Amino acid sequence: MTAEQQFDFDLFVIGGGSGGVRAARIAAQHGARVGIAEGFRYGGTCVIRGCVPKKLLVFASRFPQGFAESRGFGWEVPEVHFDWKKLVAAKNAEITRLEGAYSGNLDKAGVQRFAGYARFLGPNQLEITTADGRKTVSSRDILIATGGEPVMPDDLPGVELAISSNEVFDLPEFPRRIAVVGGGYIGVEFAGIFSGLGAQVTQIHRGPRVLRGFDVQMADLIVEAYREKGIDMRMNTTLQRLDRQPDGSIRITLHDDSTLDVDQVLIATGRRPATRNLGLENVGVETGKQGEIIVDRLSRTNMPGIYAVGDVTGTVALTPVAIRQGHAFADTTFGEKPWVADLDFIPTAIFSTPELGTVGLNEEQAVERYPLVDVYRTSFRTLKATLSGTQERVHQKILVDPCTDKVLGVQLLGPDSAETVQIIATLMRMGVTKRDLDQTMPLHPSSAEELMTMRTPATRHRRHLHRQKVLCKDC
Amino acid sequence: MTAEQQFDFDLFVIGGGSGGVRAARIAAQHGARVGIAEGFRYGGTCVIRGCVPKKLLVFASRFPQGFAESRGFGWEVPEVHFDWKKLVAAKNAEITRLEGAYSGNLDKAGVQRFAGYARFLGPNQLEITTADGRKTVSSRDILIATGGEPVMPDDLPGVELAISSNEVFDLPEFPRRIAVVGGGYIGVEFAGIFSGLGAQVTQIHRGPRVLRGFDVQMADLIVEAYREKGIDMRMNTTLQRLDRQPDGSIRITLHDDSTLDVDQVLIATGRRPATRNLGLENVGVETGKQGEIIVDRLSRTNMPGIYAVGDVTGTVALTPVAIRQGHAFADTTFGEKPWVADLDFIPTAIFSTPELGTVGLNEEQAVERYPLVDVYRTSFRTLKATLSGTQERVHQKILVDPCTDKVLGVQLLGPDSAETVQIIATLMRMGVTKRDLDQTMPLHPSSAEELMTMRTPATRHRRHLHRQKVLCKDC
Repeated sequence: MTAEQQFDFDLFVIGGGSGGVRAARIAAQHGARVGIAEGFRYGGTCVIRGCVPKKLLVFASRFPQGFAESRGFGWEVPEVHFDWKKLVAAKNAEITRLEGAYSGNLDKAGVQRFAGYARFLGPNQLEITTADGRKTVSSRDILIATGGEPVMPDDLPGVELAISSNEVFDLPEFPRRIAVVGGGYIGVEFAGIFSGLGAQVTQIHRGPRVLRGFDVQMADLIVEAYREKGIDMRMNTTLQRLDRQPDGSIRITLHDDSTLDVDQVLIATGRRPATRNLGLENVGVETGKQGEIIVDRLSRTNMPGIYAVGDVTGTVALTPVAIRQGHAFADTTFGEKPWVADLDFIPTAIFSTPELGTVGLNEEQAVERYPLVDVYRTSFRTLKATLSGTQERVHQKILVDPCTDKVLGVQLLGPDSAETVQIIATLMRMGVTKRDLDQTMPLHPSSAEELMTMRTPATRHRRHLHRQKVLCKDC
Repeated sequence: MTAEQQFDFDLFVIGGGSGGVRAARIAAQHGARVGIAEGFRYGGTCVIRGCVPKKLLVFASRFPQGFAESRGFGWEVPEVHFDWKKLVAAKNAEITRLEGAYSGNLDKAGVQRFAGYARFLGPNQLEITTADGRKTVSSRDILIATGGEPVMPDDLPGVELAISSNEVFDLPEFPRRIAVVGGGYIGVEFAGIFSGLGAQVTQIHRGPRVLRGFDVQMADLIVEAYREKGIDMRMNTTLQRLDRQPDGSIRITLHDDSTLDVDQVLIATGRRPATRNLGLENVGVETGKQGEIIVDRLSRTNMPGIYAVGDVTGTVALTPVAIRQGHAFADTTFGEKPWVADLDFIPTAIFSTPELGTVGLNEEQAVERYPLVDVYRTSFRTLKATLSGTQERVHQKILVDPCTDKVLGVQLLGPDSAETVQIIATLMRMGVTKRDLDQTMPLHPSSAEELMTMRTPATRHRRHLHRQKVLCKDC
């Protein structure tokens, strides 16, 4: 019996989300004997209750804007009606199709699938709990790819009346009135979705502004746009309790004893790495404060033969990051093609309406890290808006180090920002300068052409040192 | 009297379009005494009867697709109605506003405007024909920026029944049936516009395929998409004559004697430089075969003190090109800041539906110029299409020189292609490699992320030399 054969598998993957599935499939293609355990549905957060269904809901929520805009272009659209159940059913059909593609690709690659949750019994030993009972498997290497999960505040009386982002995709009835608690990107996206679909939305956030970590000015512009849409944005506000009312609605009591009656309360105040039922204590895998598994750049934990990728590691919680980490892990460990997922210049979008696209630094980060920062900024109504009559504006911001002319970050707010920052991410990897943009021939009429025609900084940040402005020669 | 004062103006600009207005304004800002003559409306083809109103019509034509797509997302949209006159009125209001902005900016810059057509009497001497009569002005330098104009085939019997792209924007009635003659981008765009707005469209082209000069595969995909929309695409077809019918319709007799009755015939078979009434013979300015004014990179004609920019020079007929040429001319001649508009990597879009965006070489050009070309290609239904049920696909093509890994050209067909190629133009200026794209973190879910994940060439073109495949080491 060779060393390889003393284990049931060369690699066992815990979790069938984006990172786990990619790692399993690639490792199997490299010839490894691979097993994978998933207790819920293949595809993970992204496919089942994250980016994919979220974006489908975003598409749905933007049609009314199209109906309204069309009137300025000569179209007469009678009153429309929205059927939430039809949307949920269509969304579910697509999710099921994608789920089938994920598990089908695993089967094609020869990965053995287990429908259950896996936990460590000891080094190289896992126990899988399936509908048919418990099963023990052994593997030379084990990859933890269990992702993350929403956190509900356990000190909020009545919290059991609220839903998390896990349940929001499958509400049996459309909530006419909904409160979204939390000011992160999930809360902001769902406030936009439900408002677009016609609900009366209140967004409640304990802090002074939403989207911490994002460009402050862009976050403020989203709040402004949301208020214009009629979303009740309540900042610096916290919840005391939730109570079911006789008419079935939920009464929210706020910190100042004021109340608000709604049909649903979506709590989106945070997510945590899903490490609670993994039996990590049985193998001594080191975790951090939030329960995240601590890994190095090669996805290695402190224990030999145990690896982790994706949201469970507490790094950037984005699907493509998990996929590349899983792919790199499989190529490195089983394909003798070592590489590391590059986490520089990750483009990010918030699918609010208006949509935010960002890559590189935001204004606050740029000013913190560079003594001199030039901010090029423009704001305009799109050509489409001139006839549709919508007041929504596109906002573009380019942060430049005037000493090197290097672009430090780009912030875009408006239609298709996600598509545009995807390409700008490559520009930033290549070290694009403001001059490179200036010299590019504009494409007319477009929104992106405005990025090529910003001539004068709107703001010139200059750090002072010994009461003197820092100059480029001091850099 | 100094040399400067012996002329009424330092610069006189003939033509108030994109290039002329920019040159006039910038020269005036540099302190030059500037006059400009425009006999029609300020803004030129682009603003009055080109890119701007065209794109407004494109927007209008795409709403029905949105109405149809919304149904897959749970929206019930009753039958809609379209009012062409309302669209034309709204479009005209916006055009008039823009025209006012153009002339207002000239006034603010201190440019003296003449409402009339100018022609050369002799060196430094122009005659302007206005509503009030004729006027003579003198200028040290003269810039010809008269643009282009549609050409109507004068050998077609009944051609006076047809309209050109000049008239199409202001048709008093919406044509229920329209024939679009010509296979260039203008014809393709208008076929798409009228089809989207609900007309029965026949596109007639004498050649075997539309969009000569563009990527053949992309052109074929547009034809395919148009046929699926119900546009009757007649290739290798020519017109014999047009006749007015007793019911007011126009009967088209084709080369094979078959006929077709329509409400309007739009002829879009070509444009020519607008040089016919300029009195060029009085000053000896050299023109080419199409009447285009021959200029060098600094926009100089063969005659000292006479310059030309934009479509009238017969170079790339695009607004941003004319603007940059006009700007460079003014900075160089009056601002002592010499520069030349860079015509490399001009991004171009055809606002057909689906939209084509292109920058760099197309596949045919790449294969002609490079002995080895790898073609990366993908085709997919967007996430939105999964629920909307539309069968339209996005097509992306990246042409790569495998010897250097350099990207030679990018072709995109699908939503927002114009926005995306605008940014890709900067990438290409910077010499982007396939590896730069591969290493960029995808943004999920987006369409642009697919550009970052093409792993294997669909086609590997290899030129043969002495019956041997050319290899990279031979380059």
